[in-house]
Amino acid sequence: MTRMNRQWRLARRPMGEIQDGDLELATVPVPALEEGQVLVRNVYLSLDPTNRIWMSDMDQYMPPVQIGEVMRGGTVGVVEESRDPNVPVGARVVPWLGGWQDYAIVPGSVCNQIPPGFPMSAILSSMGLTGVTGYFGLLDIGQPKAGETLVVSAAAGAVGSIVGQIGKIKGCRVVGIAGSDEKCRWIVNDLGFDAAINYRTEDVGAALDRLCPHGIDINFENVGGEIMDAVMARMSNFGRMALCGMISQYNASGPVSGPKNFTAILMRRLTVRGFIVSDYMDRWGEAVAQIGLWVSEGKIKYKVHIEQGLEHAPQTVKRLFTGDHDGKLLVEVSPPPPGG
Amino acid sequence: MTRMNRQWRLARRPMGEIQDGDLELATVPVPALEEGQVLVRNVYLSLDPTNRIWMSDMDQYMPPVQIGEVMRGGTVGVVEESRDPNVPVGARVVPWLGGWQDYAIVPGSVCNQIPPGFPMSAILSSMGLTGVTGYFGLLDIGQPKAGETLVVSAAAGAVGSIVGQIGKIKGCRVVGIAGSDEKCRWIVNDLGFDAAINYRTEDVGAALDRLCPHGIDINFENVGGEIMDAVMARMSNFGRMALCGMISQYNASGPVSGPKNFTAILMRRLTVRGFIVSDYMDRWGEAVAQIGLWVSEGKIKYKVHIEQGLEHAPQTVKRLFTGDHDGKLLVEVSPPPPGG
Repeated sequence: MTRMNRQWRLARRPMGEIQDGDLELATVPVPALEEGQVLVRNVYLSLDPTNRIWMSDMDQYMPPVQIGEVMRGGTVGVVEESRDPNVPVGARVVPWLGGWQDYAIVPGSVCNQIPPGFPMSAILSSMGLTGVTGYFGLLDIGQPKAGETLVVSAAAGAVGSIVGQIGKIKGCRVVGIAGSDEKCRWIVNDLGFDAAINYRTEDVGAALDRLCPHGIDINFENVGGEIMDAVMARMSNFGRMALCGMISQYNASGPVSGPKNFTAILMRRLTVRGFIVSDYMDRWGEAVAQIGLWVSEGKIKYKVHIEQGLEHAPQTVKRLFTGDHDGKLLVEVSPPPPGG
Repeated sequence: MTRMNRQWRLARRPMGEIQDGDLELATVPVPALEEGQVLVRNVYLSLDPTNRIWMSDMDQYMPPVQIGEVMRGGTVGVVEESRDPNVPVGARVVPWLGGWQDYAIVPGSVCNQIPPGFPMSAILSSMGLTGVTGYFGLLDIGQPKAGETLVVSAAAGAVGSIVGQIGKIKGCRVVGIAGSDEKCRWIVNDLGFDAAINYRTEDVGAALDRLCPHGIDINFENVGGEIMDAVMARMSNFGRMALCGMISQYNASGPVSGPKNFTAILMRRLTVRGFIVSDYMDRWGEAVAQIGLWVSEGKIKYKVHIEQGLEHAPQTVKRLFTGDHDGKLLVEVSPPPPGG
């Protein structure tokens, strides 16, 4: 019996928010493997704000997904067939960008096997994609020192929540900006942030004035736009801004003007640096090992929000832009093996 | 006979371009020295774009000059009276910010004495203020590597001209942006830049496309605004932007929107860093020694543009904003000693 593969393909570039019809579901037969290839059954698909960038043709850090191509996305899965002697059938693997589909065919050589004991969902969150993002963004660019003030936007998100906890481990005063009272309570009460600001109900600038009386030394920025303007206006001399994301701007239909107070970079001698987690590929293991240790010690907590069904991926990805999710957002494409 | 001191004082904050009446000339008696003080007769007054910042109450890196205060400015001078045994009468000194006035009274302890053989004008240009600015901005922030492409704005200016020459010493391809054909010819023919763009007559973006086919690795930015936008749009992955000045924006009456393509910082993983030369005070000697060596070897050339008369300082400073000067702009406040 021919194995069939459902694939979400980019049908047209979204204008503003993602709409029905921007992606279309195709069902195609899985071709036979070539020498060296493996067939991975995707178990979890990672949904990330950067997906919206890839759908657009804006200036970006990888080629945009082309119209008609399978939508790009990070996955973890189980090897169902293998023509690579180093990758056995049944192995739990990271095919890196396995895509919005039931099955990915990739060279066995690019598949990292997931060590025993690691839950597959962790590989796309705290001990993988988003955790590593937070780890290097904060430590390498933010250069946190004990006693400094760190402000994190999208602080209850998959990246922000890790960043704030690493900030606490490093001795910083950590203030998070999030989109609901519930999220604010979670980051303060459960994750140990010093304070939180609900940007939907509070004046962010006034709250930062109150909560960061000595200014802001480090900004880990996931949002951009007005929230970043409010933070930037309060940066201390020699402050560092790690630009991880600009989710407030990804649905814009054209270039968005830069921050209102760009000259603050000069006047306060700020360092503003953008990064993409894949820049740190050669140091990935260092981050995962350290985060894994912190998780085992109870110093880092994380949440995973799993939605069922590849068929719902286009609806599910929208939750990133409305904040209607609770932790790292994944789609369960197929059942995980026993043990997760 | 009481010695009199002419002082330019800030009468009101300029709106837009500096106007007659923004500064007013007062003449006051020089008071008696207190123990430890020295009286410096200012010889050269440095005029710099940052003077316009100090006149405003915009967010800035030092307190603004207050209304009624003597206008702040860098000077070199000769000690006329001394109550500091370490600073003899006749010494050529840098009182650091000696101000827009005939005489400065400062603690002898802040006066650096100028070593024999150094022309006083050099201390405010290549082997001082502007040279040190270019040295650290390019080397510390720009991190130039042989074969990389460096773009310098205000490239025929006191800072830009040094930056481009250090870029050549480090093996970069150097493209300068300047405001006249004559300036463009000077930086290419005399200073050894690889190419120059006259921003008044050329489309800067198109010229950069032609002259930097592999993108721009380093931007040394003195101008901001549209010229910076054109450069930023062409930065390569992992490029560095050293923000030294934003002269295009200093006459604006309110905050100026940031660059059009701010998200390029994220997408291209740029490092954008502002700096002020005084941040490098503890390494000043290193820069002066190295630049002095390069000057003596003929690898760095520089020009000084000296206008006569403290009374003309407010008219003279405007030349920085029109580009109507040729080299580091100084006012000769009083005659230099024999040998300069």
